[in-house]
Amino acid sequence: MNSDKIPDIIIGRLPIYLRALQRMADSGLKTTSSQELGELVGVSAAQIRKDISQFGEFGKQGTGYSITYLLEKLREILKVNRIWDVALIGAGDMGHALANYQGFANRGFKIVMVFDSDKEKIGQKIGDFTIEDVAHIVEKIKAADVKIAMLTVPASAAQNVTEKLVQAGIKGILNYAPITLNMPNHVKVQYIDPVTHLQRMTYYL
Amino acid sequence: MNSDKIPDIIIGRLPIYLRALQRMADSGLKTTSSQELGELVGVSAAQIRKDISQFGEFGKQGTGYSITYLLEKLREILKVNRIWDVALIGAGDMGHALANYQGFANRGFKIVMVFDSDKEKIGQKIGDFTIEDVAHIVEKIKAADVKIAMLTVPASAAQNVTEKLVQAGIKGILNYAPITLNMPNHVKVQYIDPVTHLQRMTYYL
Repeated sequence: MNSDKIPDIIIGRLPIYLRALQRMADSGLKTTSSQELGELVGVSAAQIRKDISQFGEFGKQGTGYSITYLLEKLREILKVNRIWDVALIGAGDMGHALANYQGFANRGFKIVMVFDSDKEKIGQKIGDFTIEDVAHIVEKIKAADVKIAMLTVPASAAQNVTEKLVQAGIKGILNYAPITLNMPNHVKVQYIDPVTHLQRMTYYL
Repeated sequence: MNSDKIPDIIIGRLPIYLRALQRMADSGLKTTSSQELGELVGVSAAQIRKDISQFGEFGKQGTGYSITYLLEKLREILKVNRIWDVALIGAGDMGHALANYQGFANRGFKIVMVFDSDKEKIGQKIGDFTIEDVAHIVEKIKAADVKIAMLTVPASAAQNVTEKLVQAGIKGILNYAPITLNMPNHVKVQYIDPVTHLQRMTYYL
């Protein structure tokens, strides 16, 4: 396995496979096939076999995949066979929704700190967390050795906060602010903007 | 222009260009270059020229692009030179965040109805809307001729609601439920699941 060579588009499908396999496991299934998994996630069986074979031989011809084993392998590949602490920056409506989101449990992530710049919000509770002053973000994140951040600040503040996150040693940012961030190559970013997703659909309507 | 032939990956970049051009326009800029736009969105100048040229000749060599003209053309291509009414299904934390989200304005979308199945929520207000009973979703959406839906229901309810949305004539679904939906080919879907985005980054850490 040479992870440098695996196209990002394949990496992007693995979390979808993982999610579907987890649902199969939750419903008591023990084995699956590339056909069955493919139908669940809307990808061809051949593509699934090809994607998974990039990382080794995880299935047996004729008997399919052990769900538990494949889950374990995918978690290992995606490095979510551990819990990543996450810093949430922005305690607005979206920040609240994420702080209360139940979907992180058992999927590798846990919010451990929440920041905002609004003096009225600092010190208030959001879910289980006390909102901290974004002015202290660099030292707090460094001290806690957090590597992942979710950004739900307004677009106008996002680049400035990003620079502090990079300075604090953050290596991955999930950005909800509707703006493309400028950051060093060694920091990964993923974007969630409902409007760009909607516009991608209306093209076809 | 033959829209059938344009790869989906290009379509996926157009909303990002549109967003960046809108920010340029908001800050008073009149013209831009593929170089400048590329730096803002993290795409090479050559790729931008190639993407945009799929739809015609919108820039002049040496003088670059008129921002207003390119905005107008991109809105036309993405069919967001109009306002699409959107039905929101699920009035939980994420539904609240979306109902209150200011980022839809001037970008082509407007939430016009909100549904939930929880008897305690039905009749309550969320932002400017009264939450309606999901039991009436098919007739309400048909009557209002809404074509786009955002789904923020639990994963366990998502497939069932999707079938009702398809029946109601919905043509595009933005799905926040952490599950792959099974639906007819003529209905478009886009997925927003923070965990799959996070897992796509941890692979590289």
